[in-house]
Amino acid sequence: MKLYDLTLSGNCYKVRLFAALAQLDLTIVPVDFMASEHKTPQMIALNPFAEIPILEDDQVVLRDAQAILVYLGNRYGGEAWWPGEAHLQGEVMQWLSVAANEIQHGPNVARLIVKFNSPADANLAKSRSQHILGLLNSHLTSHDWLAAGRPTIADCAVFPYVALAEEGDLSLIDYPNVIAWIDRVKKLPGYIDMPGLYGQRM
Amino acid sequence: MKLYDLTLSGNCYKVRLFAALAQLDLTIVPVDFMASEHKTPQMIALNPFAEIPILEDDQVVLRDAQAILVYLGNRYGGEAWWPGEAHLQGEVMQWLSVAANEIQHGPNVARLIVKFNSPADANLAKSRSQHILGLLNSHLTSHDWLAAGRPTIADCAVFPYVALAEEGDLSLIDYPNVIAWIDRVKKLPGYIDMPGLYGQRM
Repeated sequence: MKLYDLTLSGNCYKVRLFAALAQLDLTIVPVDFMASEHKTPQMIALNPFAEIPILEDDQVVLRDAQAILVYLGNRYGGEAWWPGEAHLQGEVMQWLSVAANEIQHGPNVARLIVKFNSPADANLAKSRSQHILGLLNSHLTSHDWLAAGRPTIADCAVFPYVALAEEGDLSLIDYPNVIAWIDRVKKLPGYIDMPGLYGQRM
Repeated sequence: MKLYDLTLSGNCYKVRLFAALAQLDLTIVPVDFMASEHKTPQMIALNPFAEIPILEDDQVVLRDAQAILVYLGNRYGGEAWWPGEAHLQGEVMQWLSVAANEIQHGPNVARLIVKFNSPADANLAKSRSQHILGLLNSHLTSHDWLAAGRPTIADCAVFPYVALAEEGDLSLIDYPNVIAWIDRVKKLPGYIDMPGLYGQRM
């Protein structure tokens, strides 16, 4: 099973993190993003969106971190990580949408601006980030995990860019439940890190 | 089964459309968006994100159109609309992410600007819309449906804001495969309309 990967991508880390937690073997294929390797004809053939991660598993080729998590959870992760029951799938899916929308356009963009000089609107990214971090913090007042009362692919999808928020000059100090959840994720058996996560730079 | 709903919301229409296609009975509860009813304590208790649609089905309460589609597809729609097989779920999920991200921040925002005076960046919404419409058009060169070779909840999630694109002053003329797909969706048994869809204003 091959993961086309970039070490500093939070979206790729979603997949690496889940694979580590679920004890799945990934063959990492590094993609040279700075050299625009993700835009070569070979890579566009795998993913017309010209983005990574991309997963290749036998004949299956998937783009989008959330889609890859659903695939891996369903095929290899068992009921624990991607429940089969309708209302629990719905609960998990709520947070996969948050990962694709509010987190992607909030903390992810804030980090792209600070760390990679992205020309996006910094004020907008900041206000969006504070909005979703506030909602996440409230949710975590009464929940240890995002969905289904246990660690699922929802946590793997939301964790990376939240735990990388400080790289986008977003402080987590006003979101103590988010910090506690980050600590819980970090203590899961098999957990792996990536550069820049909360707690590393203190 | 109750759907907290706004007629002019494409996100609510995703659920109404799927329910019609899958022959599910929905009790529509209109929410007075102009009077900020979605921000009342009662509504915030149902959805802290202060958004609609919200689905209530016995004890299950779900926000986010994509999550509601997964729930309904899993519980009532059968294998046809939300496949159980891992790689097909992954395929569908790729487009649920597109609905939550690229479509939401593209054609949806373009329409909010033109139709509801949203203060968002019109040029950015336009370029994002053209980008995703181009990718969608390419995909539909070799596919009749977005995923799994048949109509699924992926089509229900992506269809509304694409078919409403003209309300955001986005022409679909350069995307003939998208237009053909819109026509295919409109011919599905049970299909229902909403105001402003492609084809109505010509």
